[in-house]
Amino acid sequence: MKTCLRILAVFTLTLATLLCMAPAHAEDGYELWLRYHPLTPGQAVLYRGHTAELIIGSTTPTQIATRNELQRGLSGLLGQDLPLSETVTRDGAIIVGTAASSPLIAKLRLDIQSLGSDGYVIRNVIVDGHPATAIVGGSDIGALYGSFHFLRLLQTGQAIDHLDLHESPRIKLRVLDHWDYLNGQIERGYAGASIWDWWKLPDWRAPRYTDYARANASIGINGTVLNDVTGGATILTTTYLQKVAALADVFRPYGIRVYLSVRFSAPIEIGGLKTADPLDPQVRAWWRAKADEIYQLIPDFGGFLVKADSEGQPGPQDYKRTHADGANMLADALAPHGGIVMWRTFVYSQANKDDRAKQAYEEFKPLDGQFHANVLLQTKNGPIDFQPREPFHPLFGAMPKTPLMMEFEITKEYLGFATHLVYLGPLYEEVLSSDTMERGMGSTVAKVIDGSLEGHALSGMAGDANIGADRNWCGSDFNQANWYVFGRLAWNPTLSSRAIAEEWVRMTFTNNEAFVKPVVDMMMGSREAAVDYMTPLGLLHLMGPGHHYGPAPWDASESEADWRPVYYHRADRQGIGFDRSSTGSNAVAQYAPAIAAQFNDMAQTPERFLLYFHHVPWDYRMRSGQTLWYELVAHYTQGVDDVKQMRATWSHLHGYIDEERYQQVATFLAIQEKEAQWWRDACIAYFQSISGRPLPPGYAPPQRSLKYYESLTFPYVPGYSSW
Amino acid sequence: MKTCLRILAVFTLTLATLLCMAPAHAEDGYELWLRYHPLTPGQAVLYRGHTAELIIGSTTPTQIATRNELQRGLSGLLGQDLPLSETVTRDGAIIVGTAASSPLIAKLRLDIQSLGSDGYVIRNVIVDGHPATAIVGGSDIGALYGSFHFLRLLQTGQAIDHLDLHESPRIKLRVLDHWDYLNGQIERGYAGASIWDWWKLPDWRAPRYTDYARANASIGINGTVLNDVTGGATILTTTYLQKVAALADVFRPYGIRVYLSVRFSAPIEIGGLKTADPLDPQVRAWWRAKADEIYQLIPDFGGFLVKADSEGQPGPQDYKRTHADGANMLADALAPHGGIVMWRTFVYSQANKDDRAKQAYEEFKPLDGQFHANVLLQTKNGPIDFQPREPFHPLFGAMPKTPLMMEFEITKEYLGFATHLVYLGPLYEEVLSSDTMERGMGSTVAKVIDGSLEGHALSGMAGDANIGADRNWCGSDFNQANWYVFGRLAWNPTLSSRAIAEEWVRMTFTNNEAFVKPVVDMMMGSREAAVDYMTPLGLLHLMGPGHHYGPAPWDASESEADWRPVYYHRADRQGIGFDRSSTGSNAVAQYAPAIAAQFNDMAQTPERFLLYFHHVPWDYRMRSGQTLWYELVAHYTQGVDDVKQMRATWSHLHGYIDEERYQQVATFLAIQEKEAQWWRDACIAYFQSISGRPLPPGYAPPQRSLKYYESLTFPYVPGYSSW
Repeated sequence: MKTCLRILAVFTLTLATLLCMAPAHAEDGYELWLRYHPLTPGQAVLYRGHTAELIIGSTTPTQIATRNELQRGLSGLLGQDLPLSETVTRDGAIIVGTAASSPLIAKLRLDIQSLGSDGYVIRNVIVDGHPATAIVGGSDIGALYGSFHFLRLLQTGQAIDHLDLHESPRIKLRVLDHWDYLNGQIERGYAGASIWDWWKLPDWRAPRYTDYARANASIGINGTVLNDVTGGATILTTTYLQKVAALADVFRPYGIRVYLSVRFSAPIEIGGLKTADPLDPQVRAWWRAKADEIYQLIPDFGGFLVKADSEGQPGPQDYKRTHADGANMLADALAPHGGIVMWRTFVYSQANKDDRAKQAYEEFKPLDGQFHANVLLQTKNGPIDFQPREPFHPLFGAMPKTPLMMEFEITKEYLGFATHLVYLGPLYEEVLSSDTMERGMGSTVAKVIDGSLEGHALSGMAGDANIGADRNWCGSDFNQANWYVFGRLAWNPTLSSRAIAEEWVRMTFTNNEAFVKPVVDMMMGSREAAVDYMTPLGLLHLMGPGHHYGPAPWDASESEADWRPVYYHRADRQGIGFDRSSTGSNAVAQYAPAIAAQFNDMAQTPERFLLYFHHVPWDYRMRSGQTLWYELVAHYTQGVDDVKQMRATWSHLHGYIDEERYQQVATFLAIQEKEAQWWRDACIAYFQSISGRPLPPGYAPPQRSLKYYESLTFPYVPGYSSW
Repeated sequence: MKTCLRILAVFTLTLATLLCMAPAHAEDGYELWLRYHPLTPGQAVLYRGHTAELIIGSTTPTQIATRNELQRGLSGLLGQDLPLSETVTRDGAIIVGTAASSPLIAKLRLDIQSLGSDGYVIRNVIVDGHPATAIVGGSDIGALYGSFHFLRLLQTGQAIDHLDLHESPRIKLRVLDHWDYLNGQIERGYAGASIWDWWKLPDWRAPRYTDYARANASIGINGTVLNDVTGGATILTTTYLQKVAALADVFRPYGIRVYLSVRFSAPIEIGGLKTADPLDPQVRAWWRAKADEIYQLIPDFGGFLVKADSEGQPGPQDYKRTHADGANMLADALAPHGGIVMWRTFVYSQANKDDRAKQAYEEFKPLDGQFHANVLLQTKNGPIDFQPREPFHPLFGAMPKTPLMMEFEITKEYLGFATHLVYLGPLYEEVLSSDTMERGMGSTVAKVIDGSLEGHALSGMAGDANIGADRNWCGSDFNQANWYVFGRLAWNPTLSSRAIAEEWVRMTFTNNEAFVKPVVDMMMGSREAAVDYMTPLGLLHLMGPGHHYGPAPWDASESEADWRPVYYHRADRQGIGFDRSSTGSNAVAQYAPAIAAQFNDMAQTPERFLLYFHHVPWDYRMRSGQTLWYELVAHYTQGVDDVKQMRATWSHLHGYIDEERYQQVATFLAIQEKEAQWWRDACIAYFQSISGRPLPPGYAPPQRSLKYYESLTFPYVPGYSSW
């Protein structure tokens, strides 16, 4: 037996060598959080008894996709293929499906109906005397979602022997908005070109499209707007609709509907009409016919996203009609087919000299009650434009008769592009948990957008995608977390961003606690760090003109006043900040009275919003006892120090994960530190030139002169060009 | 022992299962011809005795790269790691290096000096009584090239027990020209965005850059022009030169120098001068200082590529200076550092009403002898512009005092973009083997450009790259063959394109003969098929305006006469073709007398060039005995039939290779068939409208009307926009 063991040892060694010699596919981030790499033997052994066989239908495309995913996931994680079975033949079966499609599941009599079609139950059950795990959906899609949830439990090292999970999404439409042009460029894209290879569609359906659908389904995303809101009308030509239909075919098994951004003037541009007036019968007929054509090709088409009368886009106001006239006209064309309209509230006019922060509210609130049932108003989280920090948008809660859809930006247009590590979970959570007070305490933004506050059946959350053709999808490994957290919060806007970060780290990197804890901490602090080194204390919109790269608080090159940083910070010899109190633009009055009263009072306003709502003297005493000027410098400096700390944290984590991703993160953190320092120094140099005050003791002066920072120019900034 | 065996068997099974379960990395083409997947056991066993240990230096970066490549390649192919050794300890050692760096190699006294620094010898030798294989380079780079050659022998299943190979490149500069803009777009690029992530350089050096260098070194390419010839001057700013330097650092160990396309007006654009006159002392000083700055950052910088006085680009003629004045001024700036200038001869002027085919010759031939020693004239293979077929450029052989550099197009601007399977080897070979007759029979184009005909030390071949950010690098698997064949012919322009195709197929797909033979046959016929369905019998330039997609022989929308198809085909009621004989533009006179006489005579002109040199009556009797009109229709039809045959061939090869690449090729062939049919039908419909003749019996009429084909428009064609 000793010889035997020796032979075995040699043999093992040989095979192990062979194993290590398999073509080295580096970890390049392509697999996202669905890596399914082998668990440690210690973990795997805990799950073996509960993963003995798989009982699942394979009649529908969604059932096949679900089965494939479970087989791929479980075989990857556990290192063994799961036998398929028709019936329960042993302990540890996994039974997946719906009551409608499986008599075995029907017999379990699980209470699934209240969870709706996207909901699911995961429960340990006994079948014919055998312990088993049932993953039961309200529909095939619910079962798919449940299967991803089950895989997540294993991926994150959780126990699966006492499961009784009941899940259903709180928000109906969970949608990615792609700002992709048909020429392959992406507005505010920092991860390469568009993943849609329009030219080769509909013939070539790249395998990546399926992986895109898998990733989205794994976090509950059920819709995708394929094209940019500022593109032309070509997407609505028959040639392109056939391409869209091919993508819809790929996505359908994963429960993902396609939507399109449409240009309001399409009837003129491609329809040959002389007008796009929403009340013109020919225009209405054109859109109806176009909708009919679309549904002929794509029976489950989702609907339209519209940016109208905003930043130069055509819209109903070109014909002296209202946003409601425009939205309803499109909604009527889609209604017979079950489609919906997502109408953006991001409108402001340079002709309107009033505070830009107030304009969307002024435009839309009077229209409450005038929109048809299949219209949602898609509203950005804050009143300006996806800044590192803004207060919640005053429209949330202010239009009780209209479903308001949240629009978050996932791509980091204002938060460091691809290379800054900024986890957006805390930003999203901060907004969603904000209390609008519209129906008393607890009227959170989350309750407005999930429809529960006003009892809307239709609800939605949109995320402006950060996905491109880069191998790692999002331009950096950590940017993948922002896609992930968006999806998870769209499913349930009350989840904790920390818990989501931890899930993501475990799935994306490792379950090693020595890695998980510091990385989650680093992620959770990263957004506040960015706020500090970019726009602390309620400042915003200090970035470079047009391309939005780097600091330019001095910039006055933009054609319009409200595109210039000086419009927003209003720094002068006396102080800094935009007075939106009752002595200023009175934007505070757009909030519910209790909120308005708080924001109206400099002393009560949370310091994180201070300079958003008030013009504050440089020597104003902050809660710390220090002056505003001191605090401003301190925050800028803290932001840089935080990034230095992030680098230090990361440097201690070498060896816990693959070298390739480790090195890329390390390089990007070095870029982030360099740019954080630049932001701090440039902003302090500029604001000091206005405040005229010395730096507080102990704070280093800017490394270069203000003149130097002002002299920098940046050609070829990604995500921006004069299309 | 029986129990023991049983345990072993179970164990083997378990491990084998584990092996098969390693995350399924699909074959996505990323590995190119360097896949190094395991050979069949039958093949591997032949090599084991010759791959027992590896003796190689690891002092220089190139030595380390060579060692890494051999270890990666041999372990992948043979499934076993090669032990490193300092001395020969057993039979079957592989000894790699140079006489200068290895006493062991010096002792072998191989005749390597005559092969030059890039050359190498691979020979079976005996060392201390042990049979071994020596891979000896004239320099580290020569040893690297030899190592790739050695790996290729194994990859293609050749014997390695009687090796005595002596190789050195016949052409000195073997260069890829990237038409990549700094904004990530690629002119005439069909494989996604640029692989250069300029924005993240110099900090982030993507691992892909190293794989790019490996692939190029494996086929002997030793230079890369990073940016498009029509870009601006930003690449010469210090910020961008630092990015270029980072790429140069990555490429250096692989023997690849970087070159830049420079804009002649750079002294004005970024230098603040008022002129770019090449004889102006300030301009000359500016370029000298710029060259000094570049070499400070990149000591082995290669030099400049220039497109001047061509298609709107600035140049010396703006200042009434000659091309020689312009090129020499730049050459003088580079000369102290050993850099060279590649000056393009692709010039023509719309002010010049003479035959466009004649203009480059007329412009440059008088300047022969006026260029400084470090200038090459980069000349396209034919006089027009990379058409599916052109006669060789008349400048080849006509400027004996000047090194002429070949420019081939690898990206398939005129040959079906990404999706048509067109192997360019036969096109390159046809040009290279053309006899200019300038110094009598055998004065081939290959001998002109390798410098041997006129005794030039400097020689070069450039290929306009087809590389982009697509995962498979080139937009399709078969397009990789065009990168490959370009490199192999730049190394030795007398190689057979068929032999190269076979090498490539074996390395890229499989050594299975049942696959290799039909695929090589298909590749070898593919270019003639494209000529037939696009532009047979000497026709050219019939493609769509600007974007160059699809047929448009009728098109007159281009602003300039010589950008219009009708300028080239000149079809009328009587016949078709461009009379370049002595009765026409007399372009034939630019060739050596014997060639000119042949081309001048309609009866002697090869039919593949007939309509290039002659306006031929529709009823002209071809060698087949049929009329020209009949032959034209027959060729168009044959092209489509050939593609149908290619599809049929491929459909029989299912199962020989991975499913993912199989399916993509199958899909692309379907696109190719559709588009070949469209080309045939549109061209026949159009030419029939002019010839007024019925289709020959048995030939199907076009599927749609001429009006339909004329009505087609194509937005967002890849590789083209109005930058």
